[in-house]
Amino acid sequence: MSTARPLAVVLASGGMDSTVAAWLAAREHELALLHASYGQRTAARERRAFEAIADRLALPATRRRTLDIGFLAALGGSALTDPALPVPTDGERGEGATGLPVTYVPFRNAHLLAAAVSWAELLGARAVVIGAVEEDSSGYPDCRADFLAAFERAVRLGTGLGARLSIEAPLVHMTKGEIVRAGRLAGAPFELTWSCYRDEEEACGRCESCRLRLKGFREAGLVDPIPYRAGTVR
Amino acid sequence: MSTARPLAVVLASGGMDSTVAAWLAAREHELALLHASYGQRTAARERRAFEAIADRLALPATRRRTLDIGFLAALGGSALTDPALPVPTDGERGEGATGLPVTYVPFRNAHLLAAAVSWAELLGARAVVIGAVEEDSSGYPDCRADFLAAFERAVRLGTGLGARLSIEAPLVHMTKGEIVRAGRLAGAPFELTWSCYRDEEEACGRCESCRLRLKGFREAGLVDPIPYRAGTVR
Repeated sequence: MSTARPLAVVLASGGMDSTVAAWLAAREHELALLHASYGQRTAARERRAFEAIADRLALPATRRRTLDIGFLAALGGSALTDPALPVPTDGERGEGATGLPVTYVPFRNAHLLAAAVSWAELLGARAVVIGAVEEDSSGYPDCRADFLAAFERAVRLGTGLGARLSIEAPLVHMTKGEIVRAGRLAGAPFELTWSCYRDEEEACGRCESCRLRLKGFREAGLVDPIPYRAGTVR
Repeated sequence: MSTARPLAVVLASGGMDSTVAAWLAAREHELALLHASYGQRTAARERRAFEAIADRLALPATRRRTLDIGFLAALGGSALTDPALPVPTDGERGEGATGLPVTYVPFRNAHLLAAAVSWAELLGARAVVIGAVEEDSSGYPDCRADFLAAFERAVRLGTGLGARLSIEAPLVHMTKGEIVRAGRLAGAPFELTWSCYRDEEEACGRCESCRLRLKGFREAGLVDPIPYRAGTVR
């Protein structure tokens, strides 16, 4: 396949942030989308969002992949994957064993990035794009810019690619309001995305992920087009 | 569970190197063994070796885990996981798309290390141990000491653990002969291990992994106790 523009592998959860990251990356790259299912509660809904987003980008089957990394759920320890642990709402974070939010999946982004890098190496892609957000986020350590820079260094030393592959995190220093505005400008299809940690029909409006998303739309002065439970303050 | 000694998660393939690494780590740590199956040809044989090794260490079920990271095989591109690509023998390396050996699984050790780190974070382990060998190896970039150091830095920045978890690669600068000697001294059960990339009953004696292993035993002046095909020069 010959393309004029370099290829980027985008980690696409089906959520708002990674979708905006994809639309920003599309300005300079051809895209391949990688979706990882790791046994999270809302996996089926996120998968549906991912496929709709890949359809919107008109990606052929060779440019979209879904990987099962369910062993992360098998390890346990996170409310996102362990049915025995409730997902906190209304500003509670919960606390896991290490003082991190109970929704933290240990070192999750390292797994996602490793999968994207392996595929990128096989595709000859020049970039891996991740929609990680550092400042206006849930405080997961694997969303920090300095982690991503260290991982990029590991990629340069640990693959046959050297400096030909970069890890790009275009949202890492944005607020949620800036992400919504950037996505609007780039034409990202917010209506296809799903961010809720708890529910699959109507977003709960109360989990950390919903709260951050709604905050972003409020800051941007826009209305989130996805359905929320009755009573949600937008 | 209270233990006097710190806990280490050892990546245990069932092969010679990781088994020697485990026996070296056991001098200072309680062990937990992590085995990853990634769709390699000899996965069933390696799994059997892993269980025998964990039995020898008398590890309970909570201290041994097997993870399926078969998505690495689904990505394709390596002779270790793709039935369409032959495993080279007799000193041929083959060459993949990036000039690396055709047995290279892109960024494999990053996946293995990420899984070990996630489990280590949940267990409160102090070390992740990998039997990577840099100098006397097949030339995979993800076996280099500088890759492992970069990955350790990513762990320190990308988990809640900081400097409480280290990545240890006790064999990384050893020759194969030194590994055999160190394993002998530590009492490692070579007879339980499996290294061959091609076969599961008798080791082929001809693939890169067999050749490196046999070289190690010759250098150490010992006889490898596992069965080889008739005609193999030990």
